[in-house]
Amino acid sequence: MDAASTPYSPGLAGVIAGETSLSLVDGTHGRLLYRGYGIGELAARGTYAQVAELLWTGAWPDQARLSPAPLADEVVAVLRLLPAETSPMDALRTAISAWGAAQRLSWPPTVEQARAVTAFAPSALAAFARIRGGHEPVPVDRTLDLAEGFLHQLTGKRPDTAAARALDAYFVVGAEHGLNASTFAARVIISTRSDLASAVVGAVGALKGPIHGGAPAEVVNQLHQIGAPEQAEAWIRAAVARGERIMGFGHRVYRAYDPRAAALRTIAEGLAGSAGWLETAVRVEDVALRVLAELKPHRVLKTNVEYYAAAVLQGIGLPPDLFPATFALARMAGWTAHGLEQAMADRLIRPEVRYVGPPERNLP
Amino acid sequence: MDAASTPYSPGLAGVIAGETSLSLVDGTHGRLLYRGYGIGELAARGTYAQVAELLWTGAWPDQARLSPAPLADEVVAVLRLLPAETSPMDALRTAISAWGAAQRLSWPPTVEQARAVTAFAPSALAAFARIRGGHEPVPVDRTLDLAEGFLHQLTGKRPDTAAARALDAYFVVGAEHGLNASTFAARVIISTRSDLASAVVGAVGALKGPIHGGAPAEVVNQLHQIGAPEQAEAWIRAAVARGERIMGFGHRVYRAYDPRAAALRTIAEGLAGSAGWLETAVRVEDVALRVLAELKPHRVLKTNVEYYAAAVLQGIGLPPDLFPATFALARMAGWTAHGLEQAMADRLIRPEVRYVGPPERNLP
Repeated sequence: MDAASTPYSPGLAGVIAGETSLSLVDGTHGRLLYRGYGIGELAARGTYAQVAELLWTGAWPDQARLSPAPLADEVVAVLRLLPAETSPMDALRTAISAWGAAQRLSWPPTVEQARAVTAFAPSALAAFARIRGGHEPVPVDRTLDLAEGFLHQLTGKRPDTAAARALDAYFVVGAEHGLNASTFAARVIISTRSDLASAVVGAVGALKGPIHGGAPAEVVNQLHQIGAPEQAEAWIRAAVARGERIMGFGHRVYRAYDPRAAALRTIAEGLAGSAGWLETAVRVEDVALRVLAELKPHRVLKTNVEYYAAAVLQGIGLPPDLFPATFALARMAGWTAHGLEQAMADRLIRPEVRYVGPPERNLP
Repeated sequence: MDAASTPYSPGLAGVIAGETSLSLVDGTHGRLLYRGYGIGELAARGTYAQVAELLWTGAWPDQARLSPAPLADEVVAVLRLLPAETSPMDALRTAISAWGAAQRLSWPPTVEQARAVTAFAPSALAAFARIRGGHEPVPVDRTLDLAEGFLHQLTGKRPDTAAARALDAYFVVGAEHGLNASTFAARVIISTRSDLASAVVGAVGALKGPIHGGAPAEVVNQLHQIGAPEQAEAWIRAAVARGERIMGFGHRVYRAYDPRAAALRTIAEGLAGSAGWLETAVRVEDVALRVLAELKPHRVLKTNVEYYAAAVLQGIGLPPDLFPATFALARMAGWTAHGLEQAMADRLIRPEVRYVGPPERNLP
């Protein structure tokens, strides 16, 4: 390798590392397509089970079922060994690693394997949440779909329809988003012909980082502080006057309205009659957009997906420290689909590095 | 991002993803330097404990101690829950994940954290090997260094000096090797400000892949088939005549003699008097190089590190299915040093991807 003529791209910004058929992230026009289908239509008309099959197979299924998987006793025993104060991301990472150890997944990865780990993860996270709270895990009800079943396993109760529908839509919009750092980590790992569990474990570890997995808890704090929609305007004006950032608005890639936020808003509007917390989120957003446009006219501060993610996850009763791991449950479809795609390409991902250390020398 | 003008680099071959002061891999001249020091001198005069400190801190310590860490009961309990037929790499990945969950490592990563996970890993792997064999884990003897202590924990006996010295030298030459796929995975993960355990867990998962972690068991098979040095010439001639590849010779990067193999050979020669298996490895290598130069004069088929890795690991009595995970123990110093370096750079690693899927369309 002739280092002098090799392009240097710190952080790989602007370097195309590969090709994908899975999603198009079009920040300029506020579009997110999974295999050509717009995220708004997918969230409105599809389920997470259908979207996951679409990502894995390339074909849109008229119907699809994806239910939480029952947990092996050994996995539950591993979760019981973790301290109650364990980060939920660490618990999920460890559970998937133990699951993968027992599965002995073969190369190349398959849709069956992708389906299996995606169905395993919600059961594992819910079991950890139960155990750390001093409760027994809830046996899976395989008649439920993944989002509904996750809520059931968290609470032991059948969730209400609005909560299950909102979480399923959240899973749809979180399923896939191009070559972000966690997805890239998964592809690097699978590029060595390692197994799909190793790739997902690496991805969970990457998503754990706060500049990737985000800090949705801050949006929740904000919604709590605002309280009711009537107080939104005064609160936002005061926060902007103090120079504070309004959480849930603005995005690195999307210059227009984040299409995932738009998709979730549409779902929220449809369910607002049956869930007051969704109505509050919609009304607070309207106020925030109006006030931000007035106070910061030169900045593009449109609602991003974190705003509705926080609204939905809080609304269904999740504690904020479970938000990042719940996002990981949604992204499981995308990570595994990228694993399948990378395995088809079957090319090692291995960049160069520039040596900037001491010149050759002898030990003292 | 203007995709049309963005360089497309599948697999990132030839793209410089960042800078490092840790090692220079100079394939053309057969050089491998850790922070400027040649691998031959490091292996001959240094210990793994010193090399790890050098990689972490940048300074060569006159003395350094790195002993295996005692295992928390919970980690041993996790290892007991894994099926006996679990891949050792999966066991190591799961143990480090469980360890990280309990440690709750803070950001940014520290040398203390790097030292802790590097000291933890050999104890975990040895305990897994004991448990799967139906034996109790061996309590750590903190008067032993890492390589010696690992052997002690595997067998319950104090290893002989030649075995401990050879394994320590193996750890030195395996400690670091630029931006290979597992190290790159670790850097991608830490670049999100995730923790060092997550990074190492991802790296173990990447190293598990056979086109990265290699297949040293094949070299062992070959040495077994050859048997004694006197049979080497006939065996190698017959294998080449059958069109078979001679394992342990030739390398993707090194056109000259792999400097890690050279370093290990020097150690092996020094110990040959006290260990017949090292003498065999040296003599078989001599025959192989002479015969390959005669039969394949147009190819550069010099000894690579896998040859001596297999000779050393087999010689100290490791079963071949532990070789990749033992390599992971050695690389722990490099992975964690890259984690520290990436955290200092504190820049998200996130390349672009080219969308090649269907154009925008509507659901059926």
